[in-house]
Amino acid sequence: MFETDWKPDKTYPMPLHLQIIGYIKEKITLNEWPIGTKLPSQRALAELFAVNRSTIVAAMDELAAEGVIQGNTGGGTKVINNTWNLMNQSYNWNSYISSGNHQPNHMIVQQINAAESDPDMIRMGSCEPAAELIPQDKIQKILKKLSVSSQPLGYEEPRGSLFLREEICKYLQTIGIATNPSSVLITSGALQGLQLISLGLLHANSIVYLEKPSYLYSLRTFQSFGMQLSGIPFEATGINIKKLSEKHKSKRGSILFTIPTFHNPTGTVMPLEKRKELIHFCEKEGLPIIEDDVYREIWFENAPPPPLKSLDQNGLVLYVGGISKNLSPGLRIGWIVGSEQVIARLSDIKMQSDYGTSSLSQNVAAELFASGLYQEHNDILRKKVKVRRDTTLIALNKHFNAIATWNIPTGGYFIWLKLNEPISMHQLFVKALNHKVLIHPGDLYEFHSNQHIRISYSNATLAEISQGIKILSELVLEQEIGN
Amino acid sequence: MFETDWKPDKTYPMPLHLQIIGYIKEKITLNEWPIGTKLPSQRALAELFAVNRSTIVAAMDELAAEGVIQGNTGGGTKVINNTWNLMNQSYNWNSYISSGNHQPNHMIVQQINAAESDPDMIRMGSCEPAAELIPQDKIQKILKKLSVSSQPLGYEEPRGSLFLREEICKYLQTIGIATNPSSVLITSGALQGLQLISLGLLHANSIVYLEKPSYLYSLRTFQSFGMQLSGIPFEATGINIKKLSEKHKSKRGSILFTIPTFHNPTGTVMPLEKRKELIHFCEKEGLPIIEDDVYREIWFENAPPPPLKSLDQNGLVLYVGGISKNLSPGLRIGWIVGSEQVIARLSDIKMQSDYGTSSLSQNVAAELFASGLYQEHNDILRKKVKVRRDTTLIALNKHFNAIATWNIPTGGYFIWLKLNEPISMHQLFVKALNHKVLIHPGDLYEFHSNQHIRISYSNATLAEISQGIKILSELVLEQEIGN
Ligand SMILES: Cc1ncc(COP(=O)(O)O)c(C=O)c1O
Ligand SMILES: Cc1ncc(COP(=O)(O)O)c(C=O)c1O
Repeated sequence: MFETDWKPDKTYPMPLHLQIIGYIKEKITLNEWPIGTKLPSQRALAELFAVNRSTIVAAMDELAAEGVIQGNTGGGTKVINNTWNLMNQSYNWNSYISSGNHQPNHMIVQQINAAESDPDMIRMGSCEPAAELIPQDKIQKILKKLSVSSQPLGYEEPRGSLFLREEICKYLQTIGIATNPSSVLITSGALQGLQLISLGLLHANSIVYLEKPSYLYSLRTFQSFGMQLSGIPFEATGINIKKLSEKHKSKRGSILFTIPTFHNPTGTVMPLEKRKELIHFCEKEGLPIIEDDVYREIWFENAPPPPLKSLDQNGLVLYVGGISKNLSPGLRIGWIVGSEQVIARLSDIKMQSDYGTSSLSQNVAAELFASGLYQEHNDILRKKVKVRRDTTLIALNKHFNAIATWNIPTGGYFIWLKLNEPISMHQLFVKALNHKVLIHPGDLYEFHSNQHIRISYSNATLAEISQGIKILSELVLEQEIGN
Repeated sequence: MFETDWKPDKTYPMPLHLQIIGYIKEKITLNEWPIGTKLPSQRALAELFAVNRSTIVAAMDELAAEGVIQGNTGGGTKVINNTWNLMNQSYNWNSYISSGNHQPNHMIVQQINAAESDPDMIRMGSCEPAAELIPQDKIQKILKKLSVSSQPLGYEEPRGSLFLREEICKYLQTIGIATNPSSVLITSGALQGLQLISLGLLHANSIVYLEKPSYLYSLRTFQSFGMQLSGIPFEATGINIKKLSEKHKSKRGSILFTIPTFHNPTGTVMPLEKRKELIHFCEKEGLPIIEDDVYREIWFENAPPPPLKSLDQNGLVLYVGGISKNLSPGLRIGWIVGSEQVIARLSDIKMQSDYGTSSLSQNVAAELFASGLYQEHNDILRKKVKVRRDTTLIALNKHFNAIATWNIPTGGYFIWLKLNEPISMHQLFVKALNHKVLIHPGDLYEFHSNQHIRISYSNATLAEISQGIKILSELVLEQEIGN
């Protein structure tokens, strides 16, 4: 007999028996119930799914009509067909889909990705900047310029547009990183930078140390290529170096992934002293670092300490940056800065992946830097995001004071809300979705965490933020009482 | 003792002893000569590299001064250091670079990629359209429109911009493919489509059948993830189905990669009858197909037969297309069309790779389709490319008549030149490079082929084409006589 904690969701706008059909078909598709599998009795199924027997009968009738299952007089019901696609004359790709090399996204990330485009959704989890934070006027200014002066766009050289790399070097200088265009690779967003590193520099069994929690836990990039994530405890100043040192055995091919500045999901900033200490430790151990610094420009009162990369004398740090968070995700522009030989290797993998990033996007980004519009925009952005943060804090104070604690971020987009009591995050996610509030449950960023929610103030409007937090607090309370 | 057929190149503008230093350092870097390796005697090295003993002495002196090798009184010279990077205070990434999961590009592709940006080079191999073939006026028209009417660009939904997918569906209709936007995934060029398929649908040990020769042989995408390429003999009408059938054992996870229309590198077009036969065979065998159709729009007299995809009733074909070849590679826009569940899987991998293709590029492409400028441009393009093909054929007739044979392409960018006598392709490549002619030797597309050159007429000017073919014929003759 099989066990499951899945149950049809009575609050969903889909009839229960159809949900059950979907569930059973999924089992069959995934080959968990191959042809010949005997189904549990109707009574057992009704109990298992916590529905009336008549609901089960309706589901079974339909599945039998479709030719998927068959009852016999001896009483058993069996799976007799797993190719309803073929019945519609269509090739069955299931074995390809299930055996492909790359892991699928977390189910919940797939659900989030799908729900993102619902315009009625209050997006309390997304780290996408709202339209009002994107400097469309400035981008249009650049497009206008390119509409009279641009060159035909062929294939780019492996590292990307030299113009853009030069501009990025000038920008990096302003945050303390002295480098040259040969040490810079343009990527299609920072995310692609991480994929290129996993493909080009790591191998199956490499260990990736990371903060616990971390954005990286929400991805499957490294795991898909066989790498292991090894979480290091986190404290108010960032990663705990002592614990890192205890865990780290100098295994060939390991690397540290860190977000020292406006950490995702906690908003934490690593102080300068600790940055020095971390670099020192990694130098001593020969442990290279991926520094993910995509939130750097979004600060409220004071600029954050300089990047680890600026303290790196030996080319130990692979610096990953981009403009998705503070300018426009849709341009898909990011960069990796590292020692030349590493960049040569990564740019070769980049060429093999997609022959380079959109030249049009690269040109627009380069012009934004070169014209000074980039810096000009950042100043405006910081003020706008601070208002969003403040609104969020006011709403949290109003609705969550009795049921949670949280940090006050000095930059970035996130508040890491810690509920006083653990609850089922999945239930909360689904309930919130039914109330048109889209959240990122904390267990995306730390396995098995059932006490955290990542609140982002980058996307929803101020009114939605207040409203969303109110709804969320009610759902949490309801669930705590229900438990 | 070690053997090598590498020799310093006397025609290169770099002193011989520096070339030798570079070669030895590479051996050490790659750990082929680990610390402690005893070097051959100076006399033996001089012989091996076909240089004077004094050249070897100069090289050894410098390597010793750098602390890389050390002679001892007993007469031997040993490798004592493999970390000259560390001597410059820099972290040694070699083990990461050499153990990364993804294979590096073919050395010769890396050399080609590097030489591509030399403006003095006559590019006889590149499949990049020349600037004059890219409709910059039309693209600027669109940019002008977007400079007043565009929306802020956030993250795109997993399959890509709906506007673009709708436009692509309309376009596909004109070439016989009836589909809907849910069955289309936007990729960053067709190349990324191939990577996504290898990551999402195939597994280590999947077999990829392909034409021999094929563009795919020049990539490492599939091999990097453990798949095996299995070449099928090729004939005037395309892949030999009988041979495919003999080779194919219905192994779970295998797939056929084919370029039925204006095949790269041979220019071949598969006739309609054979397309039907191939689809029929693959249906029978349950062997899915990747159809790479990026050259379709570049025809001279008559449009080619409809794509395999248009004959595919069962969703067996993954159709890969794009606009790099006929519009602009720099926009990095391609697409995959397949059954919905496959596209769902691939779009998930796409999200995990780079969160989608540049929205700006997607918008420009969508506007080009929607405005009719795309079709308008194709008409102009075909005429221009035909002139290029004709010029190439004239030059070939003049210079290669006695030493080679070739096909007359009815579309696409390629002539597959077959020399009457086999020669060393690598030598020819290097010599041509020294004469500022960049060729794609045939062994990129068919292992061990030493009798073919892929001539492309897409990039060089008409004058350069004539000049380049003349130079090339002289080099071939010289080499044949030298042999
Ligand atoms: C920490 C961090 N790194 C990288 C990324 C990827 O950003 P992009 O690929 O849009 O540049 C994100 C966005 O979600 C992020 O939060
Ligand atoms: C047959 C074929 N497929 C795919 C590609 C990749 O084109 P892109 O990624 O620029 O769309 C090329 C270009 O070299 C090609 O010749």
